[in-house]
Amino acid sequence: MSELVVRAEKLDAIDELAPKRAEFVLDTTVYLDGNSLGALPAAVPDRVADVVRRQWGSLRIRSWDESGWWTAPERIGDRIAPLVGAAAGQIVVGDSTSVNVFKALVGAVRLARLASDAGVRDEIVVDATTFPTDGYIAESAARLTGCTLRPVTPSQVPGVLSGRTAAVLLNHVDYRTGRLHDLPSLTAAIHASGAVAVWDLCHSAGALPVGLDEHGVDLAVGCTYKYLNGGPGSPAYLYVRHDLQDRFDSPLPGWNSHAEPFGMRADYEPAAGALRGRVGTPDILSMLALEAALEVWDDVPIAAVRAKSLALTDFFLECVAEYVPEGRVESLTPAAHEERGSQVALRCADAGEVMERLIEQGVVGDFRHPDVLRFGFTPLYVGFADVERAARVLAETLRSAHG
Amino acid sequence: MSELVVRAEKLDAIDELAPKRAEFVLDTTVYLDGNSLGALPAAVPDRVADVVRRQWGSLRIRSWDESGWWTAPERIGDRIAPLVGAAAGQIVVGDSTSVNVFKALVGAVRLARLASDAGVRDEIVVDATTFPTDGYIAESAARLTGCTLRPVTPSQVPGVLSGRTAAVLLNHVDYRTGRLHDLPSLTAAIHASGAVAVWDLCHSAGALPVGLDEHGVDLAVGCTYKYLNGGPGSPAYLYVRHDLQDRFDSPLPGWNSHAEPFGMRADYEPAAGALRGRVGTPDILSMLALEAALEVWDDVPIAAVRAKSLALTDFFLECVAEYVPEGRVESLTPAAHEERGSQVALRCADAGEVMERLIEQGVVGDFRHPDVLRFGFTPLYVGFADVERAARVLAETLRSAHG
Repeated sequence: MSELVVRAEKLDAIDELAPKRAEFVLDTTVYLDGNSLGALPAAVPDRVADVVRRQWGSLRIRSWDESGWWTAPERIGDRIAPLVGAAAGQIVVGDSTSVNVFKALVGAVRLARLASDAGVRDEIVVDATTFPTDGYIAESAARLTGCTLRPVTPSQVPGVLSGRTAAVLLNHVDYRTGRLHDLPSLTAAIHASGAVAVWDLCHSAGALPVGLDEHGVDLAVGCTYKYLNGGPGSPAYLYVRHDLQDRFDSPLPGWNSHAEPFGMRADYEPAAGALRGRVGTPDILSMLALEAALEVWDDVPIAAVRAKSLALTDFFLECVAEYVPEGRVESLTPAAHEERGSQVALRCADAGEVMERLIEQGVVGDFRHPDVLRFGFTPLYVGFADVERAARVLAETLRSAHG
Repeated sequence: MSELVVRAEKLDAIDELAPKRAEFVLDTTVYLDGNSLGALPAAVPDRVADVVRRQWGSLRIRSWDESGWWTAPERIGDRIAPLVGAAAGQIVVGDSTSVNVFKALVGAVRLARLASDAGVRDEIVVDATTFPTDGYIAESAARLTGCTLRPVTPSQVPGVLSGRTAAVLLNHVDYRTGRLHDLPSLTAAIHASGAVAVWDLCHSAGALPVGLDEHGVDLAVGCTYKYLNGGPGSPAYLYVRHDLQDRFDSPLPGWNSHAEPFGMRADYEPAAGALRGRVGTPDILSMLALEAALEVWDDVPIAAVRAKSLALTDFFLECVAEYVPEGRVESLTPAAHEERGSQVALRCADAGEVMERLIEQGVVGDFRHPDVLRFGFTPLYVGFADVERAARVLAETLRSAHG
């Protein structure tokens, strides 16, 4: 038995989060794609069955009140809040990430213009390395608000900020490389220029501390189907910092965000608080599946998640260095902890074929066009023995593949 | 036994749609709120359980391909298509109705401006009696596209159309009164002015023939949780007429509508066809619950639904006239069949209290502020005996209430 196998056993034995794995439905697969679709929390199936059979099937329309459907977006937002360092009352759940990026970015431009003491705020700066949908939506937000879109890498952001910058949209963790960007210092730089900071937390929420309130982030969005395990396409969320809520002016003012939604009034008067970010009727089945999924976090400190995440990615990189022939893959993920999210991206020319073979052998990561093997490490249900096995199977696969 | 009870029995006995009731989960309640939240189709619980346990829990990420998750928005759109008179390839499912109104209306203004041979198209005409969210979203669409919003009643629409009209947003059936608007002639008038017609089908799809293709409607939206029984907050849909799809320019160009979504390209290039209306990752649990719910329509001609719907509302109005003391309630729903949707709205001063008592007695409709009792008639699972009982309990309640 190799030294790494022994060490994996020891690390698993002292892992305080190891018992969490029993709260998920898993098999013998090494599932390293929880950064794309989180595994099924064991509490979800029965909860969903109850929502369908009793709440919808039997109570029907009464469930909007009696089963708490109507208030679910804020209630579930408050469950997510501690995971991203937000006090209650600032997050609502609903719609897709893309739609929330749109709300946040148009809202951000409007906030910047309200606050601007002089001159025109007519530029949106966007992470050029972003998951594409953020860039597409940013382009639409720019077009509809009369802004110019300026795509730059996150490290270039401080250098391009000016009195014309209205809003900046950044990803906390790069979906491709797993690089963690410096949210506190970038937010401070954005604020120093008088612009509004919008952060996309898709690849950080549930994997590492975010500290939205602590760092004075203005607006943030994120999905819930990766590290939060909400299920396929589960609703995303929008954070609007408490002191900005009264001025937040959504481009999607649906009836659910009206101060008096059942007044059926012709004039729109926005509700107070986070629920101003709501739009239409919330998608209850997915929303309440997410609520059940979030219960696994009740006793989990996010600092423990971060510590284990770093230990997992460190160990994976070590196993890869040990097992994989030198030069066969190149890590795109930063070695420095402060620059690393909870995934490892390995570049290799035949990544598409290699990932197919890995999946056949029960090691599931994903392939990102054109040449990236992406492995996500979800500390609630991935252990060190999984990591060692993944690296070993990867090495065997790389040896037998053409390369 | 009253003559109406006897007649109800006879009508139920010859009702060809009566067997459909067995395909829903129902109890002894007379459920006349299916125009707000449709009853649970019996096929849904097992389907949802399979989606959760097997597709998500066991196949996990592989289900995006293997369980057909990725293509669900178009596939389910094609299931809705025949119910609204559309050929395949023109409808996608996803997002809320409000979000789809936004896509459709901004898209409509852009289409009108592309097509406009002279002058400026800078007015959006909107149904002033609409369900409020459509009006709020129309106001936002107008603001973001530099248009003026012009709210008028549907009958006033032909009189206000001009060379400045970019788009017109109308409801096929008024959510409050149940009035059915004349879609063919209004669409023709809108087209004659060079404007683009957007129809909201929330209260007509699944209740009566719509004829989108036949009448040349440009864009349409609708929810799926009323007459289509998709479940609480199930995703809405967007129809973009075939010949407009290449020019449809969505204000929400998320990665799901990209020509090559997994190319992860920085530049947005819209997909061809209906899927250009997609935005972000689709909400799979709700989407596939809807797919199961739509199977009840497989052998149901919409003309039969319409015939029964009119017979039900006729019979209800007759029972109310017979049982309820004259002058105690006033029907807001047109008597003429060609002006009636599938609901009856009765105005009475103490409607809020009356509806509470009705619900206590197992007759479920809803109350619309400030003085409307609203009863929806869903031909797939409401029968004539239900109708008679509802009118009888209503009459008893009205007699004992203060009035």
